[in-house]
Amino acid sequence: MYELLKKINGHDDIVKLSIPELNQLAEEVREGLFNRLTKIGGHFGPNFGVVELTIALHYVFKSPIDKFVFDVSHQSYPHKMLTGRREGYINDECFKNDSGYTNPDESEHDIFNVGHTSTSISLATGLAKARDLLGEKENIIAIIGDGSLSGGEALEGLNVAGSEIKGNLIIIVNDNQQSISETHGGLYKSLKDLRDSNGESSNNIFKAFGLDYVYEANGNDIESLINLFNKVKDIDHPIVVHLTTIKGKGYRLAEINKEEWHWCGPFDRETGEPLYSYDGEDYTTIAKNFILNRAKEDKSVVVITPNMPGSFDLSIDDRVGLGDQFVDVGIAEEQAVAMASGVAKRGCHPIVLTNTTFMQRTYDQVSHDVCINNNNATFLLNYNHFNGLRDVTHLGIFGLSIFSNIPNLVVLAPTTKEELVSMLDYALTQNRHPIMILMPGGEVASRKISIPACEFEKYEINECGSEVAIIALGDFYPRGEKLSQELKNKLGITPTLINPRNATTLDKEVLNSLCDNHKLVITLEDGVLEGGFGPKVATFFSDKNIKVKNYGLEKKFYDRYDPNELIKSLKMDTASIVEYVKENI
Amino acid sequence: MYELLKKINGHDDIVKLSIPELNQLAEEVREGLFNRLTKIGGHFGPNFGVVELTIALHYVFKSPIDKFVFDVSHQSYPHKMLTGRREGYINDECFKNDSGYTNPDESEHDIFNVGHTSTSISLATGLAKARDLLGEKENIIAIIGDGSLSGGEALEGLNVAGSEIKGNLIIIVNDNQQSISETHGGLYKSLKDLRDSNGESSNNIFKAFGLDYVYEANGNDIESLINLFNKVKDIDHPIVVHLTTIKGKGYRLAEINKEEWHWCGPFDRETGEPLYSYDGEDYTTIAKNFILNRAKEDKSVVVITPNMPGSFDLSIDDRVGLGDQFVDVGIAEEQAVAMASGVAKRGCHPIVLTNTTFMQRTYDQVSHDVCINNNNATFLLNYNHFNGLRDVTHLGIFGLSIFSNIPNLVVLAPTTKEELVSMLDYALTQNRHPIMILMPGGEVASRKISIPACEFEKYEINECGSEVAIIALGDFYPRGEKLSQELKNKLGITPTLINPRNATTLDKEVLNSLCDNHKLVITLEDGVLEGGFGPKVATFFSDKNIKVKNYGLEKKFYDRYDPNELIKSLKMDTASIVEYVKENI
Repeated sequence: MYELLKKINGHDDIVKLSIPELNQLAEEVREGLFNRLTKIGGHFGPNFGVVELTIALHYVFKSPIDKFVFDVSHQSYPHKMLTGRREGYINDECFKNDSGYTNPDESEHDIFNVGHTSTSISLATGLAKARDLLGEKENIIAIIGDGSLSGGEALEGLNVAGSEIKGNLIIIVNDNQQSISETHGGLYKSLKDLRDSNGESSNNIFKAFGLDYVYEANGNDIESLINLFNKVKDIDHPIVVHLTTIKGKGYRLAEINKEEWHWCGPFDRETGEPLYSYDGEDYTTIAKNFILNRAKEDKSVVVITPNMPGSFDLSIDDRVGLGDQFVDVGIAEEQAVAMASGVAKRGCHPIVLTNTTFMQRTYDQVSHDVCINNNNATFLLNYNHFNGLRDVTHLGIFGLSIFSNIPNLVVLAPTTKEELVSMLDYALTQNRHPIMILMPGGEVASRKISIPACEFEKYEINECGSEVAIIALGDFYPRGEKLSQELKNKLGITPTLINPRNATTLDKEVLNSLCDNHKLVITLEDGVLEGGFGPKVATFFSDKNIKVKNYGLEKKFYDRYDPNELIKSLKMDTASIVEYVKENI
Repeated sequence: MYELLKKINGHDDIVKLSIPELNQLAEEVREGLFNRLTKIGGHFGPNFGVVELTIALHYVFKSPIDKFVFDVSHQSYPHKMLTGRREGYINDECFKNDSGYTNPDESEHDIFNVGHTSTSISLATGLAKARDLLGEKENIIAIIGDGSLSGGEALEGLNVAGSEIKGNLIIIVNDNQQSISETHGGLYKSLKDLRDSNGESSNNIFKAFGLDYVYEANGNDIESLINLFNKVKDIDHPIVVHLTTIKGKGYRLAEINKEEWHWCGPFDRETGEPLYSYDGEDYTTIAKNFILNRAKEDKSVVVITPNMPGSFDLSIDDRVGLGDQFVDVGIAEEQAVAMASGVAKRGCHPIVLTNTTFMQRTYDQVSHDVCINNNNATFLLNYNHFNGLRDVTHLGIFGLSIFSNIPNLVVLAPTTKEELVSMLDYALTQNRHPIMILMPGGEVASRKISIPACEFEKYEINECGSEVAIIALGDFYPRGEKLSQELKNKLGITPTLINPRNATTLDKEVLNSLCDNHKLVITLEDGVLEGGFGPKVATFFSDKNIKVKNYGLEKKFYDRYDPNELIKSLKMDTASIVEYVKENI
């Protein structure tokens, strides 16, 4: 097993192999993928689809002199296996060595640490520009999937590549006729025309951006790819190389059900069944069910998503059921937000569904297109919590620091399923302002609602005490409850416990009332502190006779951390906070 | 004068006019434009170019039932004049009534308050989507210039319009062969092919996005436009209407020098000469001269701008002089930032030039493409100051709240010309981290440098005192100096005066040292407080025995305000702060 793969550390080894050996290598790479993915999961379809492509790239081009820029880089596993990192796939003990995305800290063969889509062409134009200024000659190769092409940054990149770059730039469009969910957008008709005409159609989006163009239908055939790449190697101008590949190639289930197999958890190779499943109640299902029911009752509700229906478990049936009330704009977050502003302005109730990490692409649209106009768009964001997505490129912990400082936007942080539902209900009924709702992470909590969602500025005081007040935001509210209990148990202090419910407007009445009989206010939040919730409270009290201790994450790009260790290292665990109170009160 | 214009309040009045009368109306509209622009300035070329277009639109379509969405909306003056707001142009006393951009608070004929480019198509898709769900039938018309098409949001919008919108949507591409500066990008070859072939070229960027298409060469001829619009009115699917117009049409100087006449200050109509000019030293010229000289000495320096060379007074000669070291990516901020990351990674020194208000489009690219990778891109941002651009869509006061919370990014806030130059020098020499430099506003200050720019984390203590410490960031440092003086004069307090120099890393040594003999720390910053600098200081001291008073703007979308009045209303003027200190110390 892995007979050939074990000898491969890059171009110089690959170029020695015959075509049959290269095909054998492809099989071994797929075995390595199976080994990792069946056991710890990861991106399935993108990697299985590019095995031949990656081998041919490394055969023809000489990395790291020639530079590969993988878009999203969730398809970079084969690249890693061929550049000295096979152990992360074939040796179970080494799985952790590999980040799942290109990572310059791992290897000089990885140029950028990336995990968001649609960046590769723009990044590559920068490499090409600098190479030309330095008078050097290597090939710069961007590898981008058809799904990523709908993103504004990729389209800006095509436009600039089509006129402002004079030297070599090879843009490989890996057309597997799929995005995360299905592709959406008019440009995909152009891609289909090109596939149907073997690249001859005059309807050519790439030529329309001023780019040279070649087409290859056999994107999973190593020999065809080598011949093709040899033709474009060392080319003296930008060119698009359009390839057709099969997403999930080599695993029948994945070839058939491309969306489900975009990403996988650990699974049984024979049956495709996941090894683990979760049967309990979860916030995602609660939110999804509410939205689907509401959309049935109210035809003015429009669900808009930038290709992230999966983040809210919206199945194909769910989407079909929503009919015209569902719009997947493809990977195009800016469009999703601006469109929501238009939908709201024209009297409907849009709700945009995506993950916080991708939403950060839309600061300008949220501020300028939506909030200046105070249109009643709703944004429901998943994976805000520090113990959710933990790759450095996918952190949701910056949401508050980005969005809680935009005027007019109401950021709601539900702490229970009842609050989540009532806030969704309010958001999709009102037309007073834009609303962002941060999906809680962790176990589903339940508590009776004491303040209606429409009075979102009001803090909920759940325990009245003295000396210490705890203001615990969103899904850190249970930590506040626990802290409250421990302060009673360990220090005999009965603190005041507050659920602020929103992250954008201080309840000054409640805060002022604390000054009378409290010495210390503790804030707890699930995210980076700077720019977030706690500092707003600290500023409010900063010239008053009451101390404030903000707890939140440091301003850092954390990567693949242990959440509990992180909390302890920041002395945010309950025991450490109790210790702090003991010493400071 | 204004004989016809005075009778026009919208479609019902315009539709009664004959073609000769409509042409007469166009002349009167241009006279109105001259009246306003010669006296108070504004966007010149965009408005002069669309006079006929706007008249024809209002002739054929029935606003506000039919809905116009103007991209950027700096070309909306004629629209305003034809919808009841002529007084803002023909009556000098009413100039202030008109915001210079579409504004729903002014008129039901304005659908969105916008001032950033490339938003109209996406916003219009939202209007169209909601209209269809509500079962109504009006025309939705987006009007976008060729220059705005290079922006990612516009391209995302074209893609979605090309497949996801089933009903009426009319996208008018006002092709005047110019952006703010010249256009950049491969798509402009496609537009040229279309113009050269009277719309017949098979190289058609709009069809490549799946859109229907018509072309009209006579975009400044009312009759041709009326005929054309009558053909597409009530069309049952999205269509691009591509028109050729002349930017600045009707004023010879503006037709010749399109870039210079994109925007104008008050000027003499006969000569075109500006009525006012500023001969003193200014920060923009200092920065520009430094960059041009450095680029001559160091061929690894690359100036990248998303079509904003004018913001730094980079003339056409300057740009030609920079040669391959200058890249204008067109209006494509995301591309500019990602490209800079690539340029830095490949060993050169990129500097991105634009205004803070447009930079907000790149939060994700700054964070993900640049800062996670810690590449040494430099961003030099103009118009951060509260008394710079004061239209609600162009505020620079959110810069700190957006960018100072991104890990790895160093945000520098020079207080003098010496600091500006030394920080630029450092930024373009180092390769340790990404650096953002906030151009100071106001009068140029001068002071000897005591700490080298490379030690950016260190605060500069310029006066050692007690009781009160003033930490005054960036171009609010002179306010700190003035406050210090007044505290001495009025209260006999000698405060400590600190120039923090950077907005992203606290100098904990200096801050801790204040605890010994200070009771109050005052922070001053030129921007919105929430998410900004002061709250970081407040958080640092929040559980220590020292009070903090943060001064900064409130989290609000201010619009066309008087800067001095604003400062007074927030009690941030020196007298009010002295009063605060008197009462609280």
